[in-house]
Amino acid sequence: MTPQTQLEAALNGTVTPEMRRVAADEGLDAELLRRRVAAGRVVIPKNHARPTEIVRGIGEGLRVKINANLGTSKDLPEPEPELEKLATALEYGADAVMDLSTGGDLRRTRRLIIERSTVPVGTVPIYDAAVRAAGEKRKLIHLTPDELFEVIEEHGEDGVDFITVHCGVSRRAVELLQDSPRVAGVVSRGGAILTEWIVRNGAENPLLEQYDRLLEIARRYDMTLSLGDGLRPGCLADATDRPQIEELVTLGELARRAREAGVQVMIEGPGHVPLDQVATNVKVQKALCDGAPFYVLGPLVTDIAPGYDHIVGAIGGAVAALAGADFLCYVTPAEHICLPDTEHVKHGVIASRIAAHAADVARGLPGARERDDAMGRARCELDWEKQHELALDPETLADWRERRRPTDDRVCTMCSELCAIKGMRRALYGDPDEDDPGGEAQ
Amino acid sequence: MTPQTQLEAALNGTVTPEMRRVAADEGLDAELLRRRVAAGRVVIPKNHARPTEIVRGIGEGLRVKINANLGTSKDLPEPEPELEKLATALEYGADAVMDLSTGGDLRRTRRLIIERSTVPVGTVPIYDAAVRAAGEKRKLIHLTPDELFEVIEEHGEDGVDFITVHCGVSRRAVELLQDSPRVAGVVSRGGAILTEWIVRNGAENPLLEQYDRLLEIARRYDMTLSLGDGLRPGCLADATDRPQIEELVTLGELARRAREAGVQVMIEGPGHVPLDQVATNVKVQKALCDGAPFYVLGPLVTDIAPGYDHIVGAIGGAVAALAGADFLCYVTPAEHICLPDTEHVKHGVIASRIAAHAADVARGLPGARERDDAMGRARCELDWEKQHELALDPETLADWRERRRPTDDRVCTMCSELCAIKGMRRALYGDPDEDDPGGEAQ
Repeated sequence: MTPQTQLEAALNGTVTPEMRRVAADEGLDAELLRRRVAAGRVVIPKNHARPTEIVRGIGEGLRVKINANLGTSKDLPEPEPELEKLATALEYGADAVMDLSTGGDLRRTRRLIIERSTVPVGTVPIYDAAVRAAGEKRKLIHLTPDELFEVIEEHGEDGVDFITVHCGVSRRAVELLQDSPRVAGVVSRGGAILTEWIVRNGAENPLLEQYDRLLEIARRYDMTLSLGDGLRPGCLADATDRPQIEELVTLGELARRAREAGVQVMIEGPGHVPLDQVATNVKVQKALCDGAPFYVLGPLVTDIAPGYDHIVGAIGGAVAALAGADFLCYVTPAEHICLPDTEHVKHGVIASRIAAHAADVARGLPGARERDDAMGRARCELDWEKQHELALDPETLADWRERRRPTDDRVCTMCSELCAIKGMRRALYGDPDEDDPGGEAQ
Repeated sequence: MTPQTQLEAALNGTVTPEMRRVAADEGLDAELLRRRVAAGRVVIPKNHARPTEIVRGIGEGLRVKINANLGTSKDLPEPEPELEKLATALEYGADAVMDLSTGGDLRRTRRLIIERSTVPVGTVPIYDAAVRAAGEKRKLIHLTPDELFEVIEEHGEDGVDFITVHCGVSRRAVELLQDSPRVAGVVSRGGAILTEWIVRNGAENPLLEQYDRLLEIARRYDMTLSLGDGLRPGCLADATDRPQIEELVTLGELARRAREAGVQVMIEGPGHVPLDQVATNVKVQKALCDGAPFYVLGPLVTDIAPGYDHIVGAIGGAVAALAGADFLCYVTPAEHICLPDTEHVKHGVIASRIAAHAADVARGLPGARERDDAMGRARCELDWEKQHELALDPETLADWRERRRPTDDRVCTMCSELCAIKGMRRALYGDPDEDDPGGEAQ
């Protein structure tokens, strides 16, 4: 007898310790949260093997969450740098991390990350399966469905909280893809592996064909399924096209089947999307997937800024979250260039945090603007210590201020004595502490 | 007899060399552009003293433009670093720069910047006037209207292309401000100086009271007026309040008077604005100001990210531009901390370029997406040289790629041999050049 999933418990009317914890974190009524979990509008990704402390709720009415991708590659296979990145991601506020390792000892790296992470951990099992096949000098198209499900089972055993599975890359969607005038084809690794597998083997995607087998494993560990968008657009020109939306239709259907099987499920979304189509992508996902939590990658609203894709993704992410996206996968500055280093991870997490927070404020989430208001007050009072406390990255604030030190400690080197705040304080509050730059004369 | 302003020429049916140049740059019909200039929906800021080569058009149907602020402060008064920043801003694509100097020899710095800038140069003359008063040990409230207008005249003589003038900080708006529950009061330097001046002297803003005198000077040099929003919100809590909108109502009225006097005019906007209010701010400006070009500072969609306000501003800027804003003032990472250095300027310009370009694409500007499409193709072809050519910052792409060099030159260290593009090329194009990571076996 395996324990109930969060979804099963919710459907049975049980408020779990995890629901209680998420409700407390979010300042919500636990019973209200339970109803949202039961409706499939909120997920709490937590493998049965993992402690209650790591949970985060993702979905309707909750704070927008952010994920940081970690993981080795064949060229950079050591786990240690990934653990350093994990620590940095947690320090700057990642709500979840994914181990996307494809180099070195994958299981060891995965277990280390799971052990050290204080937030939910996700993986993409097909990478693991592909790396094993390559290690045995077998082509990816000769991966067997059994191998794939064995790997998924192993990830469940290891305590993975959510897995990306590209179940929607169907033969039908791949046919549409082959007929489509896409500029950038397929850019998802899982999507590319499955597309090749389907095309060369002339068979249906095993994750779709044997979806019930997947659901059975996921239910047993309460691994949340993150239904991946393997055919997501890889450049602006390809956004919101037929292969993408065909896949999303399938994902909506699979989300319903997951819920019916007591398996928590969220949906992954693009990708590269022009700014004016970002909200549309969210609305169509919510409609097709009955309000399932939406986990977007970016979206990236231009393709011309390698080195700055964290900014590009923050623009898309903020707009997506305002439109209803629930979970933002960060993009680091290194995207499209190389595996990120620790500094890239830091910048990626902060950019996503900005996007998520801006959307929380704009969505009117109770209490979201409090920290902004406190910062506004601190600035108006020229209270630099308080500004330091409230900043997302206090070290950078302190460091830059120190490097360009003002003569007058109360102001900064932007305006020096011609500080707008000082002038305003004299004007509005008649503040005698604030000297006029004209000084004593007159 | 002074030459005609661009607006006067347009109203007289003349297509000037400047209009022709802007039309060519934008791929537009020159006569169509002339009509937009005549309607006050496009400005071409160019002092009569400056060469035609520097022009940029700002407004309806044109590429979204970006401005980089430069300038010394009392703590960092040397002009040389500002000239270095100017070069960097131009290298990364600033369409205009503003010299906001308040330290050292202001006129020398201004003239150097004007001499070296290949794009329009703006200033805020009231800073200059305030610094002079402070230098003479006179309080800011003892600035005389004559002094202010003399400084404005001097900026015209020096060849300044556009000036920020906070004419809308009226007694009425200041009264509303005094009655308002603002968190952060006034954060505009010009706004703070004028607010104090009005409150302490019990008199009307001289830039408003003697607006015709201002128009006469502006017309003589064809200095475009950038009507400043001195009462813009300084934190999210203060956005879209009565003082802000009262000032905007006045600016709309003054814009009409400027156009009637043959003076080109644009309107400045916030500032700190929650994401859901950004589009509203643009729409209300366009309505109140009869479609005059809108020049926004950011907007910043959260207050909690000092060190990253270029990202915060890129989010707001992209959304504002999509809603119709025409000109984005960059925000550097150093905003709210210190005077920016050259690296900060580079990051500020690139962030704004991303925002402007994302909006151009989303607005469907003809040709805007071409570079994105070319990048998509280059990525799909694993053509790194082409990606390098197309990147906003090619050096960073080359540098990071070199630092984390892949074993296989065609891919990157993110995925190494498990490159999605390679798999996709095998799957969709049957590309024989793309090895399966499973290698030769089988």
